[in-house]
Amino acid sequence: MAKGVNLKSLAKELGISVTTVSRALADYDDVSSATKQKVKDKAQQLGYRPNHAARRLVTGRSSAVGFIMHGAYGDFRDQFNSRLIVSLSQALHDVAPNHDLIITTVPQDKSELDTYKRFVDSGRVDSFIVSRTQIQDPRVDYLLSQGVHFVTHGRTADAEQHCWVDTNAELGFRQATESLIQRGHRRIVFLNFPQQLNTAVLRQSGYQAAMQAAGLPGRMIHCEFGTTCAYEPVRAMLAEPLAPTAFVCASDVYAYAVLQACLDLGLMPGKDVSIFGSDNLPPVDSNRPQLSTLDVSFSAVSHAIINLLLDQAASSRSVIKHKLFDYHLLERNSTGPCPANVKT
Amino acid sequence: MAKGVNLKSLAKELGISVTTVSRALADYDDVSSATKQKVKDKAQQLGYRPNHAARRLVTGRSSAVGFIMHGAYGDFRDQFNSRLIVSLSQALHDVAPNHDLIITTVPQDKSELDTYKRFVDSGRVDSFIVSRTQIQDPRVDYLLSQGVHFVTHGRTADAEQHCWVDTNAELGFRQATESLIQRGHRRIVFLNFPQQLNTAVLRQSGYQAAMQAAGLPGRMIHCEFGTTCAYEPVRAMLAEPLAPTAFVCASDVYAYAVLQACLDLGLMPGKDVSIFGSDNLPPVDSNRPQLSTLDVSFSAVSHAIINLLLDQAASSRSVIKHKLFDYHLLERNSTGPCPANVKT
Repeated sequence: MAKGVNLKSLAKELGISVTTVSRALADYDDVSSATKQKVKDKAQQLGYRPNHAARRLVTGRSSAVGFIMHGAYGDFRDQFNSRLIVSLSQALHDVAPNHDLIITTVPQDKSELDTYKRFVDSGRVDSFIVSRTQIQDPRVDYLLSQGVHFVTHGRTADAEQHCWVDTNAELGFRQATESLIQRGHRRIVFLNFPQQLNTAVLRQSGYQAAMQAAGLPGRMIHCEFGTTCAYEPVRAMLAEPLAPTAFVCASDVYAYAVLQACLDLGLMPGKDVSIFGSDNLPPVDSNRPQLSTLDVSFSAVSHAIINLLLDQAASSRSVIKHKLFDYHLLERNSTGPCPANVKT
Repeated sequence: MAKGVNLKSLAKELGISVTTVSRALADYDDVSSATKQKVKDKAQQLGYRPNHAARRLVTGRSSAVGFIMHGAYGDFRDQFNSRLIVSLSQALHDVAPNHDLIITTVPQDKSELDTYKRFVDSGRVDSFIVSRTQIQDPRVDYLLSQGVHFVTHGRTADAEQHCWVDTNAELGFRQATESLIQRGHRRIVFLNFPQQLNTAVLRQSGYQAAMQAAGLPGRMIHCEFGTTCAYEPVRAMLAEPLAPTAFVCASDVYAYAVLQACLDLGLMPGKDVSIFGSDNLPPVDSNRPQLSTLDVSFSAVSHAIINLLLDQAASSRSVIKHKLFDYHLLERNSTGPCPANVKT
């Protein structure tokens, strides 16, 4: 790094102590206004640039929020993750222009928790956003034990002990399933997230509530993250004698895989097979049928997360706040009535 | 943050100065081996965890590499960026397990350089990977002026002054264009990157060299980053009376847009229209024609970048090294002979 004006040279120039210069620049009460002004004027005149590594030692504050992504939960290539990160970055820049969202990925075969520890130990960030929350989440346990500020996107079994922002998945998936039942579907399969995710449990319970209320047997599979994992099992199901007529999908990523399987088998989405997705992820092809999906604003969710984080940073005592968003049902081209000629 | 054992308490426990403890732990030569051992044993015994913010003040080293992405050059949603980042993270974890690749995005309406300055001033990272290099790149100028270590992915007009890893775009695009000319195509359009990118100039010159050698007039457009920007102009060109029969694309992102435009117009890729892409990005749909493309290993490029970075960090003097990769031409289903019945 280039050498420039630092606290020491400023102090020498002004003929006062380094401590006084440091405390003057940090606006401490024990430095007189006159001295503060003198120090700040000189700092500006000489082009002094604060060394934040030093500053953090004094204030315990960096201006960075960490987001650590593990390969097992999809990485940047996962459309949900990439959109969430872009939206969080935008929200942070909007609300706190001098803050940065600092993102890192952990390969699937490496420990995510080691990276958290490295970030905490190094003081590289002073707060975290934790996504893809598990029911029992070791990241949450660790951050609570360290007293580090964080907000989760998604709840955990310990939801009362930490700040979170989430969507009402139980209600949303019940409504999506009900809308298919009302259109006459009876064989409705649920493509769910991996079972350790907290939201997978909520999604499942919404789906099951709707199926049970209609006296229908449920059928659910858990899919790993990624675009390809849903394709094969769905294609196999569609070849069964009593094939499903509808799919409810925990993510549009899975819904697009169902769409693809339908097209490959010559089935028309929205007519032969109905597909309900989630998260309103944009299609890759503009001329494909538009997915019916559970919509929630990435921007609204991101602003809520950022605001909870900044509230924590601004508050001297621990304040636990939550924000639950409702999904908006977007019924588009991929859902329709159950075909009349379907075998029962 | 949790309070624990720090340099001060270690020093007190050992009855020696904080400076000695710090220098012992950092393996400075002016501390005796016996003292170093004593300090390290005690540190381990008490579970001392180094405070990296403090440590950076001494060593000037963090264990983080920065990657700043500006919205104008596509963000995580750009497949090339997301694959490069995942691959760089993997390479860094492979080679230097205690290092992190720290990524941040800058919204399109914000200054990328301000973010660089914030990262440098805060000592948050000690080196950078700079991608999507421009001919005159203000990020390169800034980092050179600050004496900060960095490696660019892509060259600049000042390529002799900094470390870089690049692909031989001039050769690759000449070969791709020649392969289409050899198959009888004459109206070959080049979809290039935005013109301020250094690689856009190299790609253009490879394409032009092939066209000029064959006595063919060139036709090129610059496309912004993103999946949709190439679609409309290509669709319009394909409706012209003397429509192009082939497209050379600076990126597979554009090539997939051409593929889509062909399918939407009922044209068969590889038969009616030939498409040559670059970077071997995976298709979204498995049943689409596979793109002919210029292939280079993301992993090899990433390892080269990481190794150059670590070489810089390990060396006491400035060493400027370069690595140029050749593209491998992958001829697959999206290229074929020029249709016999085409108007001339």
